[in-house]
Amino acid sequence: MDLVTLDDVREAAVRIAGRVVRTPLLPLGWDSGLWLKPESLQPVGSFKLRGATNAVALLSDAERARGVVTHSSGNHGQALAYAARVAGAPCTVVIPEGAPSVKVEQVRALGAEVLLVPAAERLATAERVVAERGRTLIPPYDDRRVIAGQGTIGLEIVEDLSDVEVVLVPVGGGGLSSGVATAIRALRPRTRVYGVEPEYAADARDSLAAGRVVVWDLALTHRTAADGLRTNLAELTLAHLRERLDGIVTVSEEEIAAATSRLVRGARLVVEPSGAVAAAARLFRSAELPSGRTVAVVSGGNVDPAVLAAAAVA
Amino acid sequence: MDLVTLDDVREAAVRIAGRVVRTPLLPLGWDSGLWLKPESLQPVGSFKLRGATNAVALLSDAERARGVVTHSSGNHGQALAYAARVAGAPCTVVIPEGAPSVKVEQVRALGAEVLLVPAAERLATAERVVAERGRTLIPPYDDRRVIAGQGTIGLEIVEDLSDVEVVLVPVGGGGLSSGVATAIRALRPRTRVYGVEPEYAADARDSLAAGRVVVWDLALTHRTAADGLRTNLAELTLAHLRERLDGIVTVSEEEIAAATSRLVRGARLVVEPSGAVAAAARLFRSAELPSGRTVAVVSGGNVDPAVLAAAAVA
Repeated sequence: MDLVTLDDVREAAVRIAGRVVRTPLLPLGWDSGLWLKPESLQPVGSFKLRGATNAVALLSDAERARGVVTHSSGNHGQALAYAARVAGAPCTVVIPEGAPSVKVEQVRALGAEVLLVPAAERLATAERVVAERGRTLIPPYDDRRVIAGQGTIGLEIVEDLSDVEVVLVPVGGGGLSSGVATAIRALRPRTRVYGVEPEYAADARDSLAAGRVVVWDLALTHRTAADGLRTNLAELTLAHLRERLDGIVTVSEEEIAAATSRLVRGARLVVEPSGAVAAAARLFRSAELPSGRTVAVVSGGNVDPAVLAAAAVA
Repeated sequence: MDLVTLDDVREAAVRIAGRVVRTPLLPLGWDSGLWLKPESLQPVGSFKLRGATNAVALLSDAERARGVVTHSSGNHGQALAYAARVAGAPCTVVIPEGAPSVKVEQVRALGAEVLLVPAAERLATAERVVAERGRTLIPPYDDRRVIAGQGTIGLEIVEDLSDVEVVLVPVGGGGLSSGVATAIRALRPRTRVYGVEPEYAADARDSLAAGRVVVWDLALTHRTAADGLRTNLAELTLAHLRERLDGIVTVSEEEIAAATSRLVRGARLVVEPSGAVAAAARLFRSAELPSGRTVAVVSGGNVDPAVLAAAAVA
């Protein structure tokens, strides 16, 4: 399978410069060997803006005029709506009936069209919008343009901390981890890149062990508060992770909650549970990780207000 | 009176590079004309690290070996403790008896010595530490080294948003606003710099109107939740603001609370009430401000957990 290259990531970095926030690395008073990469500070609150912006920037003028569509109601849907608005492209987001109305309103507020359909019809609906209206489908992670965009995080980590030794990245569908591992592996072959998953959504661990995409059903993964990480890998992301990831660590729900609170109170970042798993691995699973100068990617900050309030006083 | 110059600020920027976080400007989905400068992301949670780091870097080797002292128990005390630790200098922080034990513990955790004394004896105690132990006093704002350090925020704003038209800065003792106004006025004479104060601590407004330092007693200023802004100006900061500030806006407690909530939920930043006043001015007092591309300095994020929890669900 044709994998994303360092050049793809570098070209993405040029393309998205000035359209996404160049996030800093944040040192911490309580762990002198840890830096945070706070992607929660992107305008729509997650790293997804990088991949979406890169994909939209790659459209031809004619494609951009016909617009884009996706079937993710989460952070990718918002990111694509934002990126499309900035580029002046129409955008449709297919959202399952019964999704929280706040998510629907957030996507609409960014100027995108929302199609509410039964959950089982999401993909088919998006494909129909492609066929009938000529929109370009931008998937949330199973896409080389998206992976290359997320990989720009890896470039920036090396720019800011040249002697980084360990990079910890949350793994959901695998777009972020594939991109970051691609950049780090190419630029710093001796730096170790570890994926981090919730124990309740350890499908990437199982997939890497089995050498094929192992699917964890939503009946299992719905138990984790890290809702952004319930997704399974795609063939494309598994291929990247098999070749470029050094290992996978899993963290418990208690550890995710404690790390969320630590980031809120000790790093002054509003983070969602999915965004806290890499820091949770550093805090609670260091025995399973190489030692050394470590960067934890804080992937997003779109947290439920009640969860944030609980983290603030925990 | 000899004011801080642009060259002083530029030299401070070189001195503190790599020792403080180079914060980005954050664009927002809900106000396309506003960018935030999130100083809450500094390791000790406030812009104070810049001035403290510059002051410590200016010490001679002999002075550094004898150490530093301050009488601020708030963000400046923590910032000085952090900066001194990084530089390998001993540090004493004089704290009034009865201060929250969490503040005492935070300063001690940064390796500083804490002297607990009656509130009325703070300054005298700090001066005795200078006289008897040879430590150098680093005041929180009445100090050219500190003002120059805070001014580096202004340099970075112009670097990142070359055509900035309005800069909004919280005003407490006036160190931050003096430094930022110095840099902006020199680099972009047509850009307007406005200070922002709580209605319950409008001493800088009164001081600018009177042309002398007008003192608001703590019996008045304790009513604002923006505890970092209860301080009065010094002669030195007033002189800077008279020459370089374009105006002062005051905001109500309700507006501060609403802006805090907006920054927590809409920008994913953990901010303290003092850190939210500039954004409050943009949100609620735009009729009193020039229009145009605006930067609001978010000065700090050391917020009481209960206040943060309330902001999360507001």
